[in-house]
Amino acid sequence: MNVIGIDLGGTNFAVGLVNETGEILARIEGKTKVQEGPEAVARRLAEAVDRVRGSADVSAVGIGSPGSVDHKRGVVKFSPNFPGWHDFPLADEIKKYTNLEVFVENDANAYALGENTFGVGKGFEHLVCLTLGTGIGGGVITHGVLLRGSTGIGAELGHMNVLPNGPKCGCGSNGCLEALASATAMKKFVLDGYERHTNSSLFRDKNPDQVTPKDIFEHARNGDQFALSIFNTVVEALAVAIGSLVNIFNPQLVILGGGIANAGDFLLNPVLERSRNYVLPTMLGTYQVKLSQLGKDAGILGAASIVIERKAKG
Amino acid sequence: MNVIGIDLGGTNFAVGLVNETGEILARIEGKTKVQEGPEAVARRLAEAVDRVRGSADVSAVGIGSPGSVDHKRGVVKFSPNFPGWHDFPLADEIKKYTNLEVFVENDANAYALGENTFGVGKGFEHLVCLTLGTGIGGGVITHGVLLRGSTGIGAELGHMNVLPNGPKCGCGSNGCLEALASATAMKKFVLDGYERHTNSSLFRDKNPDQVTPKDIFEHARNGDQFALSIFNTVVEALAVAIGSLVNIFNPQLVILGGGIANAGDFLLNPVLERSRNYVLPTMLGTYQVKLSQLGKDAGILGAASIVIERKAKG
Repeated sequence: MNVIGIDLGGTNFAVGLVNETGEILARIEGKTKVQEGPEAVARRLAEAVDRVRGSADVSAVGIGSPGSVDHKRGVVKFSPNFPGWHDFPLADEIKKYTNLEVFVENDANAYALGENTFGVGKGFEHLVCLTLGTGIGGGVITHGVLLRGSTGIGAELGHMNVLPNGPKCGCGSNGCLEALASATAMKKFVLDGYERHTNSSLFRDKNPDQVTPKDIFEHARNGDQFALSIFNTVVEALAVAIGSLVNIFNPQLVILGGGIANAGDFLLNPVLERSRNYVLPTMLGTYQVKLSQLGKDAGILGAASIVIERKAKG
Repeated sequence: MNVIGIDLGGTNFAVGLVNETGEILARIEGKTKVQEGPEAVARRLAEAVDRVRGSADVSAVGIGSPGSVDHKRGVVKFSPNFPGWHDFPLADEIKKYTNLEVFVENDANAYALGENTFGVGKGFEHLVCLTLGTGIGGGVITHGVLLRGSTGIGAELGHMNVLPNGPKCGCGSNGCLEALASATAMKKFVLDGYERHTNSSLFRDKNPDQVTPKDIFEHARNGDQFALSIFNTVVEALAVAIGSLVNIFNPQLVILGGGIANAGDFLLNPVLERSRNYVLPTMLGTYQVKLSQLGKDAGILGAASIVIERKAKG
């Protein structure tokens, strides 16, 4: 049976018709237009569901949403990206238009389910996922169960502290993983360090505010010292976090996803190597660290896998 | 029905007959004498089991053991405290002598089960426990399930990194929680700092190598600057760890046990206050931090609760 997965973002959304093996049979993308309010967004999503559905048999809809989600009731409690959404019954609204059963989950949790269902983490019982993007999201599966926590807001791995008295984080704390290894953090390091590194090759063709994480990785690979110093900060923060996460969860696999993970082995290899400094000797050899292979489909497949997880629970 | 709990340590052991409400009806303590080898230790434990059992009805024996335990087979795989123990079938050995069913669990995991069965964490589904002693042990219950991890050595919370490039830890890494907030770490801070703080009241009646964590807390309370600086290091390390653990597990409760937790509210209050600096704003109000109330019974009750946990699983 097919399912529909909705990757709901603050700017864009994507809706996909997904079969049991994780093929995306049809896909629609659009602008979320959060400012029009939750009811209008829900209607827009429902219309997209109807279009990708066509005449296919569909068992249910899964939605990966940013922010705090009551997964039992399908309610978005609040989300920094969705001003004005408070306790919005997203599942019920979509169901009203589509007559389909609808499940909602936090997007980082959905991502972990997606890796567990269709990705490199397929079938693993013990899985730690980090999504490295504008922010850093986390999803954990331990003993085969998604770690939601007591109020449903657990696995905030981007807010593990990896450097006390480190850079300010958007959450108000200092030294969170997200404040050191997210795209936002990398861009901030460029802006903060620009005046001391005007000779950096990063600024040959670009103003400081145009430099992207991709640029930083490229210039680091080419030996630019300023780019390398930022790269090393990112690697070290990830190594500390992964070391602690391995000691905490004793997982079989740690998966790095999100845009920054596109840096590939250039990022993965030193992270893997340096994380060994923070892992207990008894843990060495018990885990792997891999890059996600789901690419731009991760959001839709994660959302689709919500349905599969809920149906499996009966 | 009563159960028997065995708290197996590298130096001492304690065996208790425990009823369903967590009363210890009989207790025997003794020297482990690890150097005599695992078979001799097992026989000594079995004799103690027979003596505390007397004529009471007993359903099974639970053993909390340091080190790496295969809980399914009741085997101690290895333990830093038990040189020469490799894949020792402790459960089978005790069963041979006593004819009782025997379950073995890592001692920090047993501790968490004990808090969940008989302690301040009774009935909680989401619980993080730290035992602050010579080392720092961890036990986690999430969604009602003990976090053992993929190879049974998870929840090593003492080896979360809380200060990269911090003090050397016994595990070989630097800046683990255990290297900053254990009794061993506190004693090391005294020895390392002695020459710069000869006027400290800590050394009025004692040589540096005689100073205990209890002394440090007492002198910190009385305003001694050197003792206070060590105290603040301990508090900050615990605050960072608890902040990250709350963001990761979204628990209802964090429990501090072990000898150092005897410092009471003098330690608990600043830890609680400073951990708020590392907790996501959305997590504030979702968790509590409490001191264990099990005291010296924690080991026996933890071991006894292993039986209760396994029997509940059927």
